[in-house]
Amino acid sequence: MWPSTSKRTSNQSADTERQGDTGRQAVKKLLARASIRINGDRPWDVQVHNPDLYQRVLAGGSLAFGEAYMDGWWDCAALDECVYRLMAARLHEEVRSWHVAWNFVKAKLLNLQDRARAHQIGEHHYDRGNDLFEAMLDAHMVYSCAYWRRADTLEEAQAAKLNLICRKIGVEVGDRVLDIGCGWGGFLQYVAEEYGARGVGVTVSEEQARLGRTRCKDQPVEIRLQDYRDLQDESFDHVVSVGMFEHVGPKNYETFFDVVRRCLKPDGLFLLETIGNKSTSATTDPWLNKYIFPNGTIPSAAQLAEALEEHFVIEDWHNFGPDYDRTLMAWHQRFADRWEVLKARYDERFYRMWTFYLLSCAGSFRSRHNQNWQLVLSPGRVRGDYRSVR
Amino acid sequence: MWPSTSKRTSNQSADTERQGDTGRQAVKKLLARASIRINGDRPWDVQVHNPDLYQRVLAGGSLAFGEAYMDGWWDCAALDECVYRLMAARLHEEVRSWHVAWNFVKAKLLNLQDRARAHQIGEHHYDRGNDLFEAMLDAHMVYSCAYWRRADTLEEAQAAKLNLICRKIGVEVGDRVLDIGCGWGGFLQYVAEEYGARGVGVTVSEEQARLGRTRCKDQPVEIRLQDYRDLQDESFDHVVSVGMFEHVGPKNYETFFDVVRRCLKPDGLFLLETIGNKSTSATTDPWLNKYIFPNGTIPSAAQLAEALEEHFVIEDWHNFGPDYDRTLMAWHQRFADRWEVLKARYDERFYRMWTFYLLSCAGSFRSRHNQNWQLVLSPGRVRGDYRSVR
Repeated sequence: MWPSTSKRTSNQSADTERQGDTGRQAVKKLLARASIRINGDRPWDVQVHNPDLYQRVLAGGSLAFGEAYMDGWWDCAALDECVYRLMAARLHEEVRSWHVAWNFVKAKLLNLQDRARAHQIGEHHYDRGNDLFEAMLDAHMVYSCAYWRRADTLEEAQAAKLNLICRKIGVEVGDRVLDIGCGWGGFLQYVAEEYGARGVGVTVSEEQARLGRTRCKDQPVEIRLQDYRDLQDESFDHVVSVGMFEHVGPKNYETFFDVVRRCLKPDGLFLLETIGNKSTSATTDPWLNKYIFPNGTIPSAAQLAEALEEHFVIEDWHNFGPDYDRTLMAWHQRFADRWEVLKARYDERFYRMWTFYLLSCAGSFRSRHNQNWQLVLSPGRVRGDYRSVR
Repeated sequence: MWPSTSKRTSNQSADTERQGDTGRQAVKKLLARASIRINGDRPWDVQVHNPDLYQRVLAGGSLAFGEAYMDGWWDCAALDECVYRLMAARLHEEVRSWHVAWNFVKAKLLNLQDRARAHQIGEHHYDRGNDLFEAMLDAHMVYSCAYWRRADTLEEAQAAKLNLICRKIGVEVGDRVLDIGCGWGGFLQYVAEEYGARGVGVTVSEEQARLGRTRCKDQPVEIRLQDYRDLQDESFDHVVSVGMFEHVGPKNYETFFDVVRRCLKPDGLFLLETIGNKSTSATTDPWLNKYIFPNGTIPSAAQLAEALEEHFVIEDWHNFGPDYDRTLMAWHQRFADRWEVLKARYDERFYRMWTFYLLSCAGSFRSRHNQNWQLVLSPGRVRGDYRSVR
């Protein structure tokens, strides 16, 4: 060992300790505003296993906060409640880092959801493995917000959601329905079985298309591996898009509505379900963007309204965001319950990542920074009444 | 008579006739696209009494169309159906004139709804005479869209609308409610009588305030002659504003939402009802602006969403625009039925003006170019569920 180095290391170590103390105090102060304590004894308090956490979070913001959780540097008995408190106190807006700035610039300069990039979300997220989603989701495999108004279980709540969509657009026997972003075909299967309708679904995920075709093989349902922009001028009685608009991107909203308009009969209805942002922002959370939904963008009401006004009349706009909190908690419960089986294919770091995803999103909906919207849109030629239902 | 003049007059007369013919042909062609005939025998056909109408309408657009009706130059058995067909064929967008351009420039340069101008609507429209509104409206004197879903008469439909508002915001005994643009106090009277709540209403019309105070004298209701911008930081359980936002103006939307936010308890709800435009536009119809609603501006969904996103979460957005068609038809029926009494105070030209106002607006709602929106807004601290009703 070289003395000079030894000396430097000793100084450095003292510096690091001081920095660590300052960092701890800074983080402690921030968390106190959300009524969260370091190593406290309430479920939403943060248990710190690695004191380097403070510097890491102060330097790297919400991305580092999530990554540190994946690395096991901290834990929390009620992670959802912790994130809810952070967001309700608006702390997430203060600890934004250069990651947010970079994502903002990227979103402004590039069309993150162009054709070349659109398949990324299929490969990155939905192709992860059908076993994961089969374990986590209900029997219909609905990967969007359930409707808990008159339901007690996830199964009931997802069936109620599918039925709500059918009631809102008034599906009748023999109708042809288009589902843009059809997932594993859950809605199309439901609408065929329960309403005697026929359907076409499009998805950009090969795994979804493969399993979807198998699941719908006894029904008059066609599932295509296709970008929505490649839909031709087919005429459908109804169009639905449930939980896919988050991948469309602001630069493509007008194109999206234009495609739907062309595929819809003049007296038809379009039901759009999407997560919504409380306010207009060009970026998504950097951690979610990196690990869960690459190139995703949550629209604000203003962005949505502006993009659709030349194409559609808003017949109804239903916000049931708090139901997403409950849905995510149910998914997490099922995911955790089935971990013993899943862990043969996924590692511990994946477990922590998926837990952070589900529970932090639950907290975000609980804080009302995110919404879940169902819009019923018409081409504006509905002369009589559209009567919305709940 | 001077020969030269005589000669000129003769030429001029031939010119005018040729111009008249050309004008008639141009108007005939335009109307044919909306399936309307000149002097035809269907209820929506236009009966022309003065052939100068064609030139007048071609030069002056929709303003001239309305003024010519007031002057008795034309008639129509079903004026509402005629305007509906014109708007459904989008003809009103083509015959815009310099009036629209002038209104656009004026709207851009001026704040048409500043404090100095805000009282104009009170004097111009709502102070016309309470007898007119008492004759035309229901017993509650609700001067906004009725809710016809489960109603057969105007009385039932307006009571249903008032009740719908109470159910949407969840009024309870003893609650304090603020009504911005309270009219003659109909809602506050209802909410006091039916729900045991107390209320404060503000209006800029002296006549409304005077009659409103009389009508509400047995209830815990205070009616103030006050600009909404002068509301101080009083804390109410609920705030409603029904059919007044059309007078606020885009330059003041943010201020309006800011005032409401300050007057509302953190766990309270704000119900906003307003007419909506299908798309974003800085102007209103020039005829309506001149004769009925000076300085009015109908918001688009995009304008509304943009102005409110920093202040409120959209809990629910209900469009029942077609109900306004039926409401306006009912108002017109009552107005026409009571004309024998009213005509002692109003002249024939007023009768035609008021008829044109009510029936052309009915046609506009029928064509879906206008909407009637009820939004339920919260400060975003509703942790649990908001469950919307219909």
